[in-house]
Amino acid sequence: MKRIVLLAASLLIGVSAFAQQALYGGPGVESPVINEDGTVTFRYRAPKAIKVEVTGDFLPTQKVDVEFNGQKFSYDAPGVRELREGPGGVWEYTTDFVVAPDLYNYTFRVDGDSVIDPHNMWVNRDVASLTSVLLVAKAGERSDLYAIHRVPHGTVSKVWYPSATAGFDRRLTVYTPAGYEKSKAKYPVLYVLHGIGGDEDAWVTQGRATQILDNLIASGAAKPMIVVFTNGNISQEAAPGENSMGYDRPTMQLPQTMEGTFETAFPEIVKFIDGRYRTIAKKASRAVCGLSMGGFHTLNLSLNYPDMFAYSGMFSAAIGVSDPTISPMYMDFDAKLAKYFAGKPALLWIGCGKTDFLYQANKDFMKKLDDNGFKYTYMETEGGHIWKNWRIYLSEFVPLLFK
Amino acid sequence: MKRIVLLAASLLIGVSAFAQQALYGGPGVESPVINEDGTVTFRYRAPKAIKVEVTGDFLPTQKVDVEFNGQKFSYDAPGVRELREGPGGVWEYTTDFVVAPDLYNYTFRVDGDSVIDPHNMWVNRDVASLTSVLLVAKAGERSDLYAIHRVPHGTVSKVWYPSATAGFDRRLTVYTPAGYEKSKAKYPVLYVLHGIGGDEDAWVTQGRATQILDNLIASGAAKPMIVVFTNGNISQEAAPGENSMGYDRPTMQLPQTMEGTFETAFPEIVKFIDGRYRTIAKKASRAVCGLSMGGFHTLNLSLNYPDMFAYSGMFSAAIGVSDPTISPMYMDFDAKLAKYFAGKPALLWIGCGKTDFLYQANKDFMKKLDDNGFKYTYMETEGGHIWKNWRIYLSEFVPLLFK
Repeated sequence: MKRIVLLAASLLIGVSAFAQQALYGGPGVESPVINEDGTVTFRYRAPKAIKVEVTGDFLPTQKVDVEFNGQKFSYDAPGVRELREGPGGVWEYTTDFVVAPDLYNYTFRVDGDSVIDPHNMWVNRDVASLTSVLLVAKAGERSDLYAIHRVPHGTVSKVWYPSATAGFDRRLTVYTPAGYEKSKAKYPVLYVLHGIGGDEDAWVTQGRATQILDNLIASGAAKPMIVVFTNGNISQEAAPGENSMGYDRPTMQLPQTMEGTFETAFPEIVKFIDGRYRTIAKKASRAVCGLSMGGFHTLNLSLNYPDMFAYSGMFSAAIGVSDPTISPMYMDFDAKLAKYFAGKPALLWIGCGKTDFLYQANKDFMKKLDDNGFKYTYMETEGGHIWKNWRIYLSEFVPLLFK
Repeated sequence: MKRIVLLAASLLIGVSAFAQQALYGGPGVESPVINEDGTVTFRYRAPKAIKVEVTGDFLPTQKVDVEFNGQKFSYDAPGVRELREGPGGVWEYTTDFVVAPDLYNYTFRVDGDSVIDPHNMWVNRDVASLTSVLLVAKAGERSDLYAIHRVPHGTVSKVWYPSATAGFDRRLTVYTPAGYEKSKAKYPVLYVLHGIGGDEDAWVTQGRATQILDNLIASGAAKPMIVVFTNGNISQEAAPGENSMGYDRPTMQLPQTMEGTFETAFPEIVKFIDGRYRTIAKKASRAVCGLSMGGFHTLNLSLNYPDMFAYSGMFSAAIGVSDPTISPMYMDFDAKLAKYFAGKPALLWIGCGKTDFLYQANKDFMKKLDDNGFKYTYMETEGGHIWKNWRIYLSEFVPLLFK
């Protein structure tokens, strides 16, 4: 028996030799902690630091002024709070407000340098940055959709399709709903598009899309559907770290993202999905939505392929960003818009935050729709151009589909 | 045009407002850098630190003595090197040796606290720790198998199966080789098991298994096969962060990992896989392998189900760790061993590192095999109980299967 204890112990230490040595941040500090009163405490051990701050989207935003190419504009940046040093060099900040149930990202700034929370191993990558994750889930609140529950789960697959446009295989994330594999039924398909700097992983990591889908479908609020998360950067095979560039540092804006190539190439994705999966391969059973750049892609896909999608969702859409002369995809906008509505789409859904820098562009677009008597559904939320809003929009949009 | 530039700029800044604010570690410091002479430089900015060190499996190991339950033993821990402070508070260490092509994990220690490299966004989670990742890939070297190349890629899916034993759905990672979906052929299946503290993600993240499989199959070195990565912690639905416990901190040793439940319940996984995928559902086309605890599971699965697997791979197997009286799965070892070999398995493959704390246990087991005239294949490598070896073993084992 002694031998067994010894071996078990050595097994533990052996396997975890590196983990234990490296135990991230060291023991004894808990962060973040959701307190009983709904506030959240953040802690960071740094005995030699002069200043420790926390920033993240759980804090009220603050206006930041920027100058770019001689133009001045401002945007909403996450707030910043100072931590106060306590015993043992452990800095601490507790919110003076109840942190509403939601999924948040945050980082510390230690004497100006940004670092993730060393006591929280849950991180999201956003372009070339890591952020720590805080999930405040509460039954009955929307954020409960972002949590994993013991409900039937869909299958989430990383699937490669041959892109004739790109000249190489490219990766998609594909969600097939619980029951798909056992069924012989055909399913409708929703295509979900990311924003600039994103990829086929973004909606799954930051967007909690597969949790939202599992939960909405399990409760009967949404129909079972296949969901395809595309990679909108045609020059890229797959998300950073998942392509043949290896562990190169990702860059924000890639070529061929907003100059028409993605939209031109889109039918090859639809063809691939209809060929591989049991889809209902017709307009009434096809939807598309996307955030920011993906909202722009959504609009252009809807207008250029009026027979492809019955449902379109524009989330904080980057309307009016690209030069309309750079691609046939962006030309003849008004004529295409008229043709699109003549095709009687089941739903054009628009969501935008009140402080989004794209708010006015979206309002202008809706005015054009109103002036022409074109029908759409609009949801306006607080806040700006952030994931918090895009998760809300997805969870509002999905239940409306294929009904 | 000005408007387009402005909007494009604000789009960038808007989308990345948080990313830019949080730009991990701040600009101007590059780390890690693989130098032209094959050395590697690590950098960390910490103007106020007293001591900055780097530790990781790229460094030679050092013996560490431990006492546990009154017993003393030693194990190989990764080496540690000090960084030297330079201008701007940027600490630096360059290896005084060529870092051999391989995949490595490392962390910094800043005044004793462990942190990942803030300038390297590529991380692996190991139980409750994050480590930074360094891949030194070189054509013609084994580590090239760990890199993503423009070869046909298999599909990697997260799949849930109903576990009657656990009483809830549990998650598997399933690899179907390139061509599977277009083919009508049936495929052999390899089951790959993790060690203590691991889960169904471990072989894919730390083990680079799907890259190894893609590359071996693309080159013709291995047969196309379905590969199933199980979760050996029966009390757990899925990997930490992917189950209904939410973002709880994971623990190293879970209940029901090495007391027979996993082995008892294994046929329900095989049945599920044979039901869902186009498998060749017979012994000659089924293989199993695993590392450490997974090597122990592999041995017990092979002995208790002698008609299930023709190929078995024990990688640094945790032989002799569990009390043989705690489960019928572990009883009558010698009789089961004889019956297993009477069934003429195609391959029993054993791999162990010379400084593994389980080296002697594996040698003892092989002596027993020798004494009985039971055939096996053995690979001995340098080093100990580490992923570096398990990636080697997998890439040696897989080409031997189903031929």
